[in-house]
Amino acid sequence: MTSETSAYQALCAAFARIHRYEHLQGIVSWDQAAYMPPAGNEARAAALAELAALLHRLRTEPKIGHLLTQAEAEPLDAVQRANLREIRRHWLLATAWPEDLVERRALAGARCEHAWRSQRPANDWTGFAANLRPVLEIAREEARLLAERSGLGLYDALMDQYEPGMRAAEVARLFGEVRRWLPGLIQRVVARQADEPVIEPVGPFSVPAQRGLCEQVMRRLGFDFQAGRLDVSAHPFSGGAPEDVRLTTRFVEDNFVLALMGTIHETGHGRYEQGLPRAWLGQPIGAARSMALHESQSLSFEMQLGGHPGFARLLSPLLVEAFGDQSAFEPHNLHRLLTRVKPGLIRVEADEVTYPAHVILRFEIERALIEGEAEVDDIPAMWDERMQSLLGIDTRGNYRDGPMQDIHWTDGSFGYFPCYSLGAMYAAQWFAAMRRELPGLDTAIDAGDLSPALDWLAARIWSQASQWPTDELAQRASGETLNPAHFRAHLERRYLRD
Amino acid sequence: MTSETSAYQALCAAFARIHRYEHLQGIVSWDQAAYMPPAGNEARAAALAELAALLHRLRTEPKIGHLLTQAEAEPLDAVQRANLREIRRHWLLATAWPEDLVERRALAGARCEHAWRSQRPANDWTGFAANLRPVLEIAREEARLLAERSGLGLYDALMDQYEPGMRAAEVARLFGEVRRWLPGLIQRVVARQADEPVIEPVGPFSVPAQRGLCEQVMRRLGFDFQAGRLDVSAHPFSGGAPEDVRLTTRFVEDNFVLALMGTIHETGHGRYEQGLPRAWLGQPIGAARSMALHESQSLSFEMQLGGHPGFARLLSPLLVEAFGDQSAFEPHNLHRLLTRVKPGLIRVEADEVTYPAHVILRFEIERALIEGEAEVDDIPAMWDERMQSLLGIDTRGNYRDGPMQDIHWTDGSFGYFPCYSLGAMYAAQWFAAMRRELPGLDTAIDAGDLSPALDWLAARIWSQASQWPTDELAQRASGETLNPAHFRAHLERRYLRD
Repeated sequence: MTSETSAYQALCAAFARIHRYEHLQGIVSWDQAAYMPPAGNEARAAALAELAALLHRLRTEPKIGHLLTQAEAEPLDAVQRANLREIRRHWLLATAWPEDLVERRALAGARCEHAWRSQRPANDWTGFAANLRPVLEIAREEARLLAERSGLGLYDALMDQYEPGMRAAEVARLFGEVRRWLPGLIQRVVARQADEPVIEPVGPFSVPAQRGLCEQVMRRLGFDFQAGRLDVSAHPFSGGAPEDVRLTTRFVEDNFVLALMGTIHETGHGRYEQGLPRAWLGQPIGAARSMALHESQSLSFEMQLGGHPGFARLLSPLLVEAFGDQSAFEPHNLHRLLTRVKPGLIRVEADEVTYPAHVILRFEIERALIEGEAEVDDIPAMWDERMQSLLGIDTRGNYRDGPMQDIHWTDGSFGYFPCYSLGAMYAAQWFAAMRRELPGLDTAIDAGDLSPALDWLAARIWSQASQWPTDELAQRASGETLNPAHFRAHLERRYLRD
Repeated sequence: MTSETSAYQALCAAFARIHRYEHLQGIVSWDQAAYMPPAGNEARAAALAELAALLHRLRTEPKIGHLLTQAEAEPLDAVQRANLREIRRHWLLATAWPEDLVERRALAGARCEHAWRSQRPANDWTGFAANLRPVLEIAREEARLLAERSGLGLYDALMDQYEPGMRAAEVARLFGEVRRWLPGLIQRVVARQADEPVIEPVGPFSVPAQRGLCEQVMRRLGFDFQAGRLDVSAHPFSGGAPEDVRLTTRFVEDNFVLALMGTIHETGHGRYEQGLPRAWLGQPIGAARSMALHESQSLSFEMQLGGHPGFARLLSPLLVEAFGDQSAFEPHNLHRLLTRVKPGLIRVEADEVTYPAHVILRFEIERALIEGEAEVDDIPAMWDERMQSLLGIDTRGNYRDGPMQDIHWTDGSFGYFPCYSLGAMYAAQWFAAMRRELPGLDTAIDAGDLSPALDWLAARIWSQASQWPTDELAQRASGETLNPAHFRAHLERRYLRD
């Protein structure tokens, strides 16, 4: 290496610039959801489309391809090699699709999503299906192009964007196993909980009090308000930038649990971003590892910690402070409330026990759609059949709370759904590893001390960013690659232990 | 014109793209001031610098110069011609400075401004002067380059960026006239008001109540909350984008007048932006005409309307509703309170009678600085001498509340200050024209009906955007070019009439 700029350094400069534009995109998108007045939408959409087009150009500049080839011949250390591996991954994904496909996808997705917002309340499956067909066609085209590039299968190629290294066959194996024990486990849990009465909290719960409570809990979870915020949006999310994390929630006056548990979930995402190593930010190695890993953090917070009896004890006085004393806030009752299992129609409202059923059915359907084994018109029957067999719920004719309930398919994000349940499995695996290493973990949580768990996640997951492929990250963090036995053990331990 | 894209259309497309990036800049800058957590600043600054560099590249693309030459030979209608005139103006300004000067300016300005934030409270003139010298040197270099391009004088060339068509000689003539009658008028007003006791409102005034009041008043002033917001920042401003106007204010509990009058001022800026013709947005013809014209709107709201006896009547019940009944809120007292004249050290706290003194002294000093007739070390003496002669105030040794009080010079914005008082003069001229055309204007305002005044401004100023050169706009709006006699008549009428 001479004092000239190396190809590797030039690549780093290109990605640092992309990171700066992504910062703008993150903040402006957050504003669009959280604060933008309605009449600003048209100009905002045009501005964000301009920025998306710019980012696409920057990510697909031919010079990146040349620099990659050169850099791979340069003497690099391990971290630089790992960054280069991630840069190549980004480059392959970004250049897989021609510009016109990117535009057609954005257009078809925007049309389908926009119409969906009124078609869903109207239960208008026929109208929705008409818009979904072109979205699916484009997704199949994307899958073909990505598969050609990567040598992966069609669904694998799409899923690899969100969960690098994960394959449909592996997901099918993991989910197939869950499918065998889940319906029985749900029945046993529901039967058992029928004998465990829960006192429901009595509202209304004022929005300022809820907001204060959420911020308190975020502080207890170590969220850094010097480097992030909590605001309100119709659909809660974690956005912004790693240096300035913007979480949102949504308050309803008659139920504080929704906003609170949603906030805890987003705080998991937020701390992952805040915990990424600052020195690597802006480089692909510095990004969160994958979407399943991201969900493993939000679910470590919401489910592993949020459903822990010690967390109910921690929460109880905060609730009394926020809303006044109620017998529902007594820790034992609160814990029952937060771990109540009830099969239902809606994925985002599902508890951790029934949640995998929602994901498994979506995975099976979208895989068949992408691989050409099913068409849009087949979705309702596939949906009904699986809701019946997995959760024992009849959904016939209810498209609104059936296959029209999620936003993912409307904009063509096929291949994402598995990440939710893979994340739940990883979260259970992290806590199993923690318990092996930290025998005092549950005692600490019972005493309101979350720091051993949070420190473990910071050291093993957040600070590792994208340094390792996912399997190696899991191995280094927990001594094994993804092992779904921990998830089952977690559910049985929490919901069926005497 | 064939069906091919004309050069004019290509220019429009280039400026529409610039407008979309300016939208991002406006929203992200607003967020930086209103919501960004402190630790986000470094990444934000880098992202905004990247965007500023991109905008500079887009504004100076050589193809714009070629297209301009071609477009000037194309058959265009009057509106297109006017747009082309503005495009040329933007092009000349954008390309006057080499890239390295833009960078040196940003660097020197950022350094001076950053240090100023602690030097000002410490009254550290020597430290400040050391940073201001390079800023001034760069501003002189800018002035030389702009002057070479435009054939204007040095100070003219800088001022022309903010106030196209205005010349230092004309400002000197206008301000010279004001200089003759202003000190005497101030003395007479102060003497007269000494016999007019005012009951001061008694706080505290809760922030939520103040916010509610400000939003109420904004609605009465016709601000469209579907296309804009009011938020909080340390230094109030009007920002965002014309399609999504972001106003900010600042609340202190012991004084509601500051936030209220500041909000009314910003609402004037905001309605100008909201009132620009939607069809032209994104093109230079669709932008607000100039900074003096912009200030003429904020001052039409804050001073012409805000200081009107009818406005105090309108405000009185809103204050009672917000803060409970107080004798200070009685309309006659309230009007006295809102029109109190008191010579003071600080420009931004000045009333409309003493305000021009602050501007005149800054104009005289900055013109001398730019034209090489004064140096940074001469500023304090020039300042003291003028504060003494114009306002009768001794400021010796008080740099903090003297030449260190404004942000403008710290980042090299020489040539802006005159716009404030030119705006006050224009505002008086608009209201004089309204009164000639609408004999019932004051009766309407006295009855709480602001619509005749607002509709006049919408039709004559806002909807005209940059269609006409400023003199022609003024002529069309009010029958004459800028005539400072209206400002004097306004002050005498409001403050000295029996």
